[in-house]
Amino acid sequence: MSQRPIVVIAGGGFGGLEAAKALRRADVDVVVLDRENHHCFQPLLYQVATAALSPADVAWPIRSILRHQANATVLMAEVTGVDTRAKRVLTDKGPIAYDHLVLATGSTHSYFGHDEWAENAPGLKRIEDATHIRRRILLAFEQAEATSDEAERRRLLNFVIVGGGPTGVEMAGAIAEIARLTLVRDFRNIDPRKARVVLLEAGPRLLPALPEDLSDYAARALCRMDVDVLTGQAVTACDPGGVTAGGRRIEAATVIWAAGVVASPVARWLDVAADRAGRVEVLGDLSVPGCADVYVIGDAARVVDARGTLVPGLAPAAKQMGTYVGRAIAARVAGEAPPEPFRYRDYGMFATIGRRSAAAVFGGVHLKGLVGWLTWCVAHVYFLIGMRNRFVVAFNWLWDYVTLQRGARLITDVPAPAAPAVAEPERKSVAAR
Amino acid sequence: MSQRPIVVIAGGGFGGLEAAKALRRADVDVVVLDRENHHCFQPLLYQVATAALSPADVAWPIRSILRHQANATVLMAEVTGVDTRAKRVLTDKGPIAYDHLVLATGSTHSYFGHDEWAENAPGLKRIEDATHIRRRILLAFEQAEATSDEAERRRLLNFVIVGGGPTGVEMAGAIAEIARLTLVRDFRNIDPRKARVVLLEAGPRLLPALPEDLSDYAARALCRMDVDVLTGQAVTACDPGGVTAGGRRIEAATVIWAAGVVASPVARWLDVAADRAGRVEVLGDLSVPGCADVYVIGDAARVVDARGTLVPGLAPAAKQMGTYVGRAIAARVAGEAPPEPFRYRDYGMFATIGRRSAAAVFGGVHLKGLVGWLTWCVAHVYFLIGMRNRFVVAFNWLWDYVTLQRGARLITDVPAPAAPAVAEPERKSVAAR
Repeated sequence: MSQRPIVVIAGGGFGGLEAAKALRRADVDVVVLDRENHHCFQPLLYQVATAALSPADVAWPIRSILRHQANATVLMAEVTGVDTRAKRVLTDKGPIAYDHLVLATGSTHSYFGHDEWAENAPGLKRIEDATHIRRRILLAFEQAEATSDEAERRRLLNFVIVGGGPTGVEMAGAIAEIARLTLVRDFRNIDPRKARVVLLEAGPRLLPALPEDLSDYAARALCRMDVDVLTGQAVTACDPGGVTAGGRRIEAATVIWAAGVVASPVARWLDVAADRAGRVEVLGDLSVPGCADVYVIGDAARVVDARGTLVPGLAPAAKQMGTYVGRAIAARVAGEAPPEPFRYRDYGMFATIGRRSAAAVFGGVHLKGLVGWLTWCVAHVYFLIGMRNRFVVAFNWLWDYVTLQRGARLITDVPAPAAPAVAEPERKSVAAR
Repeated sequence: MSQRPIVVIAGGGFGGLEAAKALRRADVDVVVLDRENHHCFQPLLYQVATAALSPADVAWPIRSILRHQANATVLMAEVTGVDTRAKRVLTDKGPIAYDHLVLATGSTHSYFGHDEWAENAPGLKRIEDATHIRRRILLAFEQAEATSDEAERRRLLNFVIVGGGPTGVEMAGAIAEIARLTLVRDFRNIDPRKARVVLLEAGPRLLPALPEDLSDYAARALCRMDVDVLTGQAVTACDPGGVTAGGRRIEAATVIWAAGVVASPVARWLDVAADRAGRVEVLGDLSVPGCADVYVIGDAARVVDARGTLVPGLAPAAKQMGTYVGRAIAARVAGEAPPEPFRYRDYGMFATIGRRSAAAVFGGVHLKGLVGWLTWCVAHVYFLIGMRNRFVVAFNWLWDYVTLQRGARLITDVPAPAAPAVAEPERKSVAAR
């Protein structure tokens, strides 16, 4: 019935949601597609993976976020392609016609051509990844407690994180805290404090996107938490037994991949060129060269903004791009002048390391230690969606901070059969320690 | 090294945990086995299944609960049998020797000989069951929004709960609230309020364990929430399309099983007789006839107490039995006189129906409506393990009560491929409503 233009937004992440919201008052029908029913607050996903928060604390149903926006429809569907000529998005629920299309489908972890490493070294992008990693970490301690094989026990208590960006630094710090603080009194046969946490970075320093003094600070802070920080060590092999990096073999039951991302296959859908990270090079208004009705934003886009800055793959950047394209489409539909080319406003960048320690650049100021950490906490609670989540996350952090406990230490959905049986005499020693 | 007697407790549920705690000061080594790493507060599991709470809010790591009890070891292992002659428990992690054995392995849902119904009609016993049911309920609404087939949409919006005990009543009430309150503004193509919720009970009345006036109250309260309560309707068929009950066919995409439980295979492990519900008939001291060193407690035991009461399969009963056997074993080990035979103290029974409505017998008084509901809320928060969980649950309830929202509406771990594709014209109508 309606003859209003249809704006299809693929992806309910930071970029897609902001694009939808910016079209709130536009005379269009907005359709938001996502393969998940929820928006995930990825900056805190590592806290789900390390048992500090529950999945629902960092996720919120997309249709609930947009429920008061009468011109928005949400559909749980996975994009499989784009027919730019017929102006249709292809999805697993059938094709969907569009007048304007915003592709905000993000990125996934990249194994640099070694996709076979994925099974041994899971990455962290979705809620399921987080609960999977949580299960792996907690099961490693359980199995170490149950085994009587000394070498296997050491392997089970070795944790390797590949990649020294913010996620890698955060995971390494959090696993060290689980081992050194949370689990201290929980086991009888192992001393969790003896767990070894190794952070591997192929480049010369941690947090390469931050200034050098903050990289140094992060490395020192991790060393104080007994994390082995190994820079200049590219991984060359990864198997169920462990990893090889820089010629050195590390036996480890738990390997976590935080080394790199690749854009979702937007370039393939549009049949345009992509850069090495799979990103589509877009024009100043974030539209795709040759397809004025198609915009790519967020992690899937390679954007050099009006000032010549290569826009980083961060949540604030994706949100700014979302708002920009939403407004640009609204202007086009209203017959108004197009906005100035996109400009990225860099408010800062954070990486938390652990209790009372984070590295941040915020408004040009370098923040470390407690001040950086408190700034990080406040910023992340503030940007969470929904008052309930803000409150529950803040409460959980306060609780964990005081008690050293972590509120979500659940092992669920264990798929594989349990560890091999051990002989009776060893078992008996468990009871008769 | 130690020559202290070893008490193995199989199961970290209500009974097993209380048994372990009651042995706190006894001169024994306690080994608690559970296939999960967490104790699950089953009375609130239906709230996880209906998106009101997160799994971690109703579960707590067993080794964390017992971490200050120096004589207790916790092992994540699944019991597969008992060798009563050699005094060993057989587990997937190998055999474990015991001097005293407490079997507190609980029960699971029973399909009364129709195990093939399990896939179409999941039951609710473990955390994974709850997240599975949550996914089914939320996906049904998503798929109803996406389909253009009117009959299929009706089928997707039909929810059938089989079994009119407390779990069935609670699930029916909660699903009705999701449809009538939580989701009202979230969809564009369907009206969630039109969802049909059917509660099937084979017997003549709901909540057969409660007095008749409370059964009537529950049925009336559910009817006010537009739940179709059908008593005297035994299910005779259950398939992916729906159920047949009392000769009537109900097309429904979501069927939830709350109709009956069967004890874990303790009788088979011990090679003793079981009653129809698979329970082992135990002596007055809860030990197994012919095996004075083996006790069965909780849902796995058929206990007629010193007053001739058949002890019901409730959490408080399991806890009382746990405390009793813990003390009985402590007395035996200390060479003291055995305690009097077990007596069940009946403090009451609850079933909540929805906002401001519950049915309860509490200290002999029949409670209904708001008073019953508030009593239910306070009692359940009080009995939760851990201050963090008490606080988070209370906060979530208050939040849900005020906002009508539910904090954990996540669809995760979707296994099957998505719904069949529909033709383009219909899809277009989604956007152009």
